[in-house]
Amino acid sequence: MSAPKKVVLAYSGGLDTSIILKWLQTEYGCEVVSFTADLGQGEELEPARKKAEMLGVKEIYIEDLREEFVRDFVFPMFRANAVYEGLYLLGTSIARPLISKRLIEIAAETGADAIAHGATGKGNDQVRFELAAYALNPEIKVIAPWREWDLTSRTKLIDFAEKNQIPIAKDKRGEAPFSVDANLLHTSSEGKVLEDPAVEAPDYVYQRTVHPEDAPNDPEFIEVTFEKGDAVAINGQAMSPATILTKLNELGGKHGIGRLDLVEGRFVGMKSRGIYETPGGTILLEAHRGIEQITLDRGAAHLKDQIMPQYAELIYNGFWFSPEREMLQALIDKSQEHVTGTVRLKLYKGSVRTVGRWSDHSLYSEEHVTFEDDAGAYDQKDAQGFIQLNALRLRLIAMRNRRLGG
Amino acid sequence: MSAPKKVVLAYSGGLDTSIILKWLQTEYGCEVVSFTADLGQGEELEPARKKAEMLGVKEIYIEDLREEFVRDFVFPMFRANAVYEGLYLLGTSIARPLISKRLIEIAAETGADAIAHGATGKGNDQVRFELAAYALNPEIKVIAPWREWDLTSRTKLIDFAEKNQIPIAKDKRGEAPFSVDANLLHTSSEGKVLEDPAVEAPDYVYQRTVHPEDAPNDPEFIEVTFEKGDAVAINGQAMSPATILTKLNELGGKHGIGRLDLVEGRFVGMKSRGIYETPGGTILLEAHRGIEQITLDRGAAHLKDQIMPQYAELIYNGFWFSPEREMLQALIDKSQEHVTGTVRLKLYKGSVRTVGRWSDHSLYSEEHVTFEDDAGAYDQKDAQGFIQLNALRLRLIAMRNRRLGG
Amino acid sequence: MSAPKKVVLAYSGGLDTSIILKWLQTEYGCEVVSFTADLGQGEELEPARKKAEMLGVKEIYIEDLREEFVRDFVFPMFRANAVYEGLYLLGTSIARPLISKRLIEIAAETGADAIAHGATGKGNDQVRFELAAYALNPEIKVIAPWREWDLTSRTKLIDFAEKNQIPIAKDKRGEAPFSVDANLLHTSSEGKVLEDPAVEAPDYVYQRTVHPEDAPNDPEFIEVTFEKGDAVAINGQAMSPATILTKLNELGGKHGIGRLDLVEGRFVGMKSRGIYETPGGTILLEAHRGIEQITLDRGAAHLKDQIMPQYAELIYNGFWFSPEREMLQALIDKSQEHVTGTVRLKLYKGSVRTVGRWSDHSLYSEEHVTFEDDAGAYDQKDAQGFIQLNALRLRLIAMRNRRLGG
Amino acid sequence: MSAPKKVVLAYSGGLDTSIILKWLQTEYGCEVVSFTADLGQGEELEPARKKAEMLGVKEIYIEDLREEFVRDFVFPMFRANAVYEGLYLLGTSIARPLISKRLIEIAAETGADAIAHGATGKGNDQVRFELAAYALNPEIKVIAPWREWDLTSRTKLIDFAEKNQIPIAKDKRGEAPFSVDANLLHTSSEGKVLEDPAVEAPDYVYQRTVHPEDAPNDPEFIEVTFEKGDAVAINGQAMSPATILTKLNELGGKHGIGRLDLVEGRFVGMKSRGIYETPGGTILLEAHRGIEQITLDRGAAHLKDQIMPQYAELIYNGFWFSPEREMLQALIDKSQEHVTGTVRLKLYKGSVRTVGRWSDHSLYSEEHVTFEDDAGAYDQKDAQGFIQLNALRLRLIAMRNRRLGG
Repeated sequence: MSAPKKVVLAYSGGLDTSIILKWLQTEYGCEVVSFTADLGQGEELEPARKKAEMLGVKEIYIEDLREEFVRDFVFPMFRANAVYEGLYLLGTSIARPLISKRLIEIAAETGADAIAHGATGKGNDQVRFELAAYALNPEIKVIAPWREWDLTSRTKLIDFAEKNQIPIAKDKRGEAPFSVDANLLHTSSEGKVLEDPAVEAPDYVYQRTVHPEDAPNDPEFIEVTFEKGDAVAINGQAMSPATILTKLNELGGKHGIGRLDLVEGRFVGMKSRGIYETPGGTILLEAHRGIEQITLDRGAAHLKDQIMPQYAELIYNGFWFSPEREMLQALIDKSQEHVTGTVRLKLYKGSVRTVGRWSDHSLYSEEHVTFEDDAGAYDQKDAQGFIQLNALRLRLIAMRNRRLGG
Repeated sequence: MSAPKKVVLAYSGGLDTSIILKWLQTEYGCEVVSFTADLGQGEELEPARKKAEMLGVKEIYIEDLREEFVRDFVFPMFRANAVYEGLYLLGTSIARPLISKRLIEIAAETGADAIAHGATGKGNDQVRFELAAYALNPEIKVIAPWREWDLTSRTKLIDFAEKNQIPIAKDKRGEAPFSVDANLLHTSSEGKVLEDPAVEAPDYVYQRTVHPEDAPNDPEFIEVTFEKGDAVAINGQAMSPATILTKLNELGGKHGIGRLDLVEGRFVGMKSRGIYETPGGTILLEAHRGIEQITLDRGAAHLKDQIMPQYAELIYNGFWFSPEREMLQALIDKSQEHVTGTVRLKLYKGSVRTVGRWSDHSLYSEEHVTFEDDAGAYDQKDAQGFIQLNALRLRLIAMRNRRLGG
Repeated sequence: MSAPKKVVLAYSGGLDTSIILKWLQTEYGCEVVSFTADLGQGEELEPARKKAEMLGVKEIYIEDLREEFVRDFVFPMFRANAVYEGLYLLGTSIARPLISKRLIEIAAETGADAIAHGATGKGNDQVRFELAAYALNPEIKVIAPWREWDLTSRTKLIDFAEKNQIPIAKDKRGEAPFSVDANLLHTSSEGKVLEDPAVEAPDYVYQRTVHPEDAPNDPEFIEVTFEKGDAVAINGQAMSPATILTKLNELGGKHGIGRLDLVEGRFVGMKSRGIYETPGGTILLEAHRGIEQITLDRGAAHLKDQIMPQYAELIYNGFWFSPEREMLQALIDKSQEHVTGTVRLKLYKGSVRTVGRWSDHSLYSEEHVTFEDDAGAYDQKDAQGFIQLNALRLRLIAMRNRRLGG
Repeated sequence: MSAPKKVVLAYSGGLDTSIILKWLQTEYGCEVVSFTADLGQGEELEPARKKAEMLGVKEIYIEDLREEFVRDFVFPMFRANAVYEGLYLLGTSIARPLISKRLIEIAAETGADAIAHGATGKGNDQVRFELAAYALNPEIKVIAPWREWDLTSRTKLIDFAEKNQIPIAKDKRGEAPFSVDANLLHTSSEGKVLEDPAVEAPDYVYQRTVHPEDAPNDPEFIEVTFEKGDAVAINGQAMSPATILTKLNELGGKHGIGRLDLVEGRFVGMKSRGIYETPGGTILLEAHRGIEQITLDRGAAHLKDQIMPQYAELIYNGFWFSPEREMLQALIDKSQEHVTGTVRLKLYKGSVRTVGRWSDHSLYSEEHVTFEDDAGAYDQKDAQGFIQLNALRLRLIAMRNRRLGG
């Protein structure tokens, strides 16, 4: 790779990405464009502008991407009921492609030939950032300082910051007891005090949800309304995608919903342990399953369940912008045409459960299922033939085995 | 089908199967063998013996199948983390093949040419009973009185019972407000007051779990130990399969764990709404996932997740004794060779969560994943090539599209 | 089912469906509408009109559906490279839903409340006709005379025909040595002389392809051009869908291409043996695979291959008009956006093979793959990291096993 | 990676691996153990011994692995009917893990800490060699000279050989017009004159099969007998695995069977074009499918078809020694218990077709399928109920859509 001339950096305004910003300027002698996005991580963005200015950045992008994030990434993923390894709601994974998309677009706008990110060489995020970037611009250069530089200890990083007049918040001098990523969908924590998967995560790790023991003693009931697979209203009040997720986060956080202690298999090959908090997403998943129960045909639902693990793996591994993810999305979206209706949920001390659901699009037929007289809607004698023909091949096997003395 | 000469009936001792017993005797003039099994449904079996004797049955089988049920059916299924339509733990589905197996074996022992069951023509259970039966004996006759007779209302059933001196418990005269099935794995309730899926199930439906609001205010921590995918001990105390599940049921029931309100797609084509209580099974599933997290390789785990919906569907649809279920079982069992270790779980007011897990068979490598110095266990530079080659095909697509002006 | 008042019959004009027509009139006393379609079976349709008139039919539909058949059914299916049980190109299966669609539409136009078909109770076709019909009109009545009547022998059929003045062609008095179905995609033969799967099919069974031994001694080369997954031209000459398939049938038939002797698993449970001739379809499948080789990304191609067996099974089983088939179609169609280009094929004595392919949409990069100097397009050192990270989980397993002394 | 002390080299005796041998000695100053295997590539092995001796190798391993290759690798793979991207029989892919297995075993025997291979950095073979090696010995060092050295042109290689007294056959001075890999299963050719996928491969590329035009004018019929999924006899004559494949190669080669011109997607990300000749394997695949047609249940067969692409991809990508391949193998092997019987095949000018098959284990029931009177084996009325219940969910969808005016 030839040296980059102008780099767009995914810049949080924090110490680490400030060091990266400076390092890019000094190491490559190149101009740096900073890009800071509000994905709902719950931090002020304006301080990032000042820091970037102070570091000599001339092109500073600060953007609120919350609506785009939920509408074009989170919601399409939730249409699939996607969970990775049975449990993880993919809160970090789904944010990365959007960041890369904007990095590439800003590179085009500013004439930059490279992008840079602050992910380490051990994790999945580097893969997600870079696969998305290359899929959108095959000629882009990607700089991953953590894989390149020699600032391999906290001491060296602090030294570099001091030498370069990068301000260091008091609480950043020592190492954080664990590492955090946050956006509107979730907060993840990993590393350091969490590295022994046998040991329960300390209480202070949780940042977005109350302890279930501290949640209200009375359950709360809410209603979530869907149109074509996407949540559109809470308790009858229509809201934008990001507003809905924000509101569900409040509700879930208050009731201690959406905590997960997981050991997962990383794409780069090792297992890692993470603590995830996905309060709104956990409610949304339950609600979406609830509305699908009455509006989605069995054949459609089973096909979705069958391809879901692969879809989730693609997102986890960073292949959002790949033909196969888009093909699976086409399949999923096709299934959601009638996923419209309302689900009633009970939130209580760490759990969320569907307790009712209704829809004009319902396929549930009380007329057919009833234990009462069904007025001929269903002829029980049909079951005889249904069973006989389903059994035929099994009987032929049994006859064969019997014939062979097996 | 020619008339049966001798029938083995799955006999609970209750009113309905007593009517069936009598009806078989009068309708077909055939001898009836009764088979009553303890699958952990929590009812006395001896009353069934007296009733059968009173109805003139000469060959009466009463058996405790709890260990066989858990060891050969429930545990193999839990190795797969099987859930149907994302949520249902298959408590009823998994019991049916065992009952059919014994019916067929008893038919062979007693020289019977037919079996009979009390499942209706609208449900899945008839399919499960009969597919299993035909798979084990292709010549067997199966009688499903509910599909055949004209006792199509409660009044007619009661009349038939009275005419035939079948004793009727007082509370059985009227119709039950809902229908129940129970075994060591779960209790399911459906029908009548539960038929409107929009309306929350009344409290009195739940029989095996306390309301989460009534569960202890303090969480309880337990440890479940696995060997090759099966639970073998709780809190360090080794127990038999059925004993373990019984103990987990107590724990789960006490903490209000394992309730599910589900609308599901039946194999016979319509949707139905069920209330399931699976206290021990819900803990077991969480624990099994917990131990797999550290002992099962990512490739193995993802393959298991991918085929799981199909495996669950086969069990739900009644294909336990089919080549494809056995093939999937071979795959699953192969994966469990190292699923050995202990999981620590927190039980609290309706939820169960893994909070720690450890194993001699662990694949988790703190050495590789650590944020600290890893002493060369992992070379971050390798990620560069890994990403480049994973990205290559995506870049080739992007180049193609760019070339075409896309 | 209450008695039908007016029935639309899938009417070929042959002896069997003429008997059905008469039987419907006499058995149900209902009016019959006849529907005869040209799907490329190679028979004159006008004689059917005369026969129908003679049998008193007032509403006679005779339609050329060949273009619709190929455009809306055959081509979408070939985008998937669909084969059933590894070999069968689904020639009969794919025609049934179109016939049902027109039967239902004609029922709506003519105010009929029922449709009827001439498929037997042992085969797949009854299922395909009826599932499609019910999916399009849930209230329609379907009459399947072969499952209902007592004309269970050839003698009884001939008697019925004679009693009802239905003309009988001389060669139809005795039973045919095997049964045939044909349309523009294929000819299938089964039954009677073909029922022993150990015995080679006699030469006279084949009707649409020459014996490979009798095919020209010189190979013929052709070029097939695709746009978005569909064939649009042969040897540079643009043609309509049905014209293309007709032309490919000529070419394939001449060279003895597309014969198949198969024992397959029917949806209704037993195995059957069929002889299929699919000359044009066999060429089309090879050509489509050929063009996908250079225009379809690996991720997309593998996903397609993975879901194909299920897609083929759905079509075979009669679920064309089902949500899951439509979902899979959405996935497949999404993949075909760039499947545009030309394939060169060699036809010779029973086989067709791709020998070249080219496209503006090609993903093949000689620059990357070359054994010669690639000018830096590909850095071989990247393979090191790619392998290391792919190997990591395998190494962790090996370390675990070694640690355990395994 | 620290410097290796002793290296086991996969040594063919040819110029390239002789250069590698010398380079290892000079570059690393380490001892080299040579390993030369007969996998049926059709070359004398003894010359390799002499060359190795001449190059100073003290530990020389020369082994005939043909039986192990076919019995433990080729046959298990053929039980799955494995084809990659619809067409490729994986002839190269399946040989690599066996070579790695022996390299690792010899390293253990000789106290070597490294292995080396002659695969380039652009292909799949490096991945296959190395993944297998790391899976079997997580501490092994792997040296891939083509990714490391600077002998990046033919000229430099020849110079190195001359400087090091490595004898150069006259025809090896210039570059070969294409690259070849061969073993008992196949010959593959790629590169150079084959790099333009639009251009037909020249005749001289084919080495193992006659041109179909030059094959005998009369077809030849053979019978292949299987036991539990593996071929055990040809024309009634029992043979060892390698002998069977050798014999099938002769037959296939004589009739021009098994040629394939393919553009495939490599694991390392680009597409490549290969010419494959797999004469015996092509017959074996057809024969195996033929015997499965009557001995394998539909449910089993469809499950196998469904997982096959993934199984083939695993082998192609080099994951033979992975938990997921072994899990799939367990599934496949379970299915083969009754795949026993004989298939009759017609070989003629480039094609092989099943024309008959028979087995004591057959599931084909003429009694059930017959067009004649079946004496009650199958009740056609059962089809009514079978269709009704399969249709129910489709009708419920149609009713819903009608209700919504859709």
